[in-house]
Amino acid sequence: MDKTILRKLSYGLYIVSSKLDNELVGCVVNTVTQITSENPLLMVSLNKNNYTNEIVRKTKKIAIMVLNQDINKEVIGKFGFYSSKDINKFDGVNYELINDLPVLKEGTCGYITGVVENIIDAETHDIFLIRVKDMQTTNSSEPLTYKYYQENMKGVSSKNAPTYVEEKVEVSMAKKYRCLLCGYIYDDAKEEVKFEDLPDDWHCPLCGASKDQFELID
Amino acid sequence: MDKTILRKLSYGLYIVSSKLDNELVGCVVNTVTQITSENPLLMVSLNKNNYTNEIVRKTKKIAIMVLNQDINKEVIGKFGFYSSKDINKFDGVNYELINDLPVLKEGTCGYITGVVENIIDAETHDIFLIRVKDMQTTNSSEPLTYKYYQENMKGVSSKNAPTYVEEKVEVSMAKKYRCLLCGYIYDDAKEEVKFEDLPDDWHCPLCGASKDQFELID
Repeated sequence: MDKTILRKLSYGLYIVSSKLDNELVGCVVNTVTQITSENPLLMVSLNKNNYTNEIVRKTKKIAIMVLNQDINKEVIGKFGFYSSKDINKFDGVNYELINDLPVLKEGTCGYITGVVENIIDAETHDIFLIRVKDMQTTNSSEPLTYKYYQENMKGVSSKNAPTYVEEKVEVSMAKKYRCLLCGYIYDDAKEEVKFEDLPDDWHCPLCGASKDQFELID
Repeated sequence: MDKTILRKLSYGLYIVSSKLDNELVGCVVNTVTQITSENPLLMVSLNKNNYTNEIVRKTKKIAIMVLNQDINKEVIGKFGFYSSKDINKFDGVNYELINDLPVLKEGTCGYITGVVENIIDAETHDIFLIRVKDMQTTNSSEPLTYKYYQENMKGVSSKNAPTYVEEKVEVSMAKKYRCLLCGYIYDDAKEEVKFEDLPDDWHCPLCGASKDQFELID
């Protein structure tokens, strides 16, 4: 099968969040879809390995932020490349609690908060059906698409940013691999561990795809 | 609630099809999402009023075509504004049968065929979980996004096209309404029936949203 057609599916880019007691969690997703129009029901799929999934399952509450093109890419890096189990991703980020859920105040077109009404098991992922409880457009900025992010916002992080990784010298030896699902680039030259040395249960930090979903690129 | 944020969700544009005996069906959708990466599982939601939904439920087979920017907008009009119950939408359209499913040969980046493994009831819609059986990128064209369609391909159809509707004279009296879900414009000046005279169970011809999901625009 020729999986390249899957790269032609179009998506937006979002951060979803939740809160359990004082613990704030969140991650980057591209799978927010409106299902019904009256008393709207949305769906979001989240990888089961994702800590945000665990907290959303527990609390049944979720906020969805529609990212815009002005978002600081370090914020995407922080929410996309780390686990909320390890760090509080909202530390140092401008946010407020809306309906007791953390919502970014910058880099978004607006937000939606809702409650989980159904969870459908889909193998490596769960599909959450979410009843909208509150939603707001906060400005007229352009929503960020996955394509725009891939084409215009990728690259090495700022040296001062939490996501910065020092470049290695042996660039000529380095290989690059692309996630067939989301387009994320794993560049050996910028990582501590070569792609081929990553464990088999390693997952794409952005979309959760498994290691065998990456292809070697030039 | 401020529903305008729902318009900031990003989507692609697709035609899905199925075949029961010699009957070919298909419609336009914007809700194709990849859920898992290994042995890929996709999801598509279809309005329950949609005849294609009925046939996909029966056959458990579906083809998904990823539309590109070169697609003839009359084809979108035909697949979006009519019911497969009334006409064979594939009449006069260049297609071939792949895995016994009708697949457009023009105006697409490629196709995916699959079988329905699960159907989740979501009120006005059904969510179909689809196991990919075959998929192919057929050319390197740009996928069509819903946004691009709304901004660049809308407008009155060609006079010779099946979707053409003669413009009315009383344009100054006419009002326009926009679907909050998909952005479809209902223009009184171009329709036989004024929007306010449409029956309560009327639905958006493009996405199936109910009448009360439309707003009056300038």
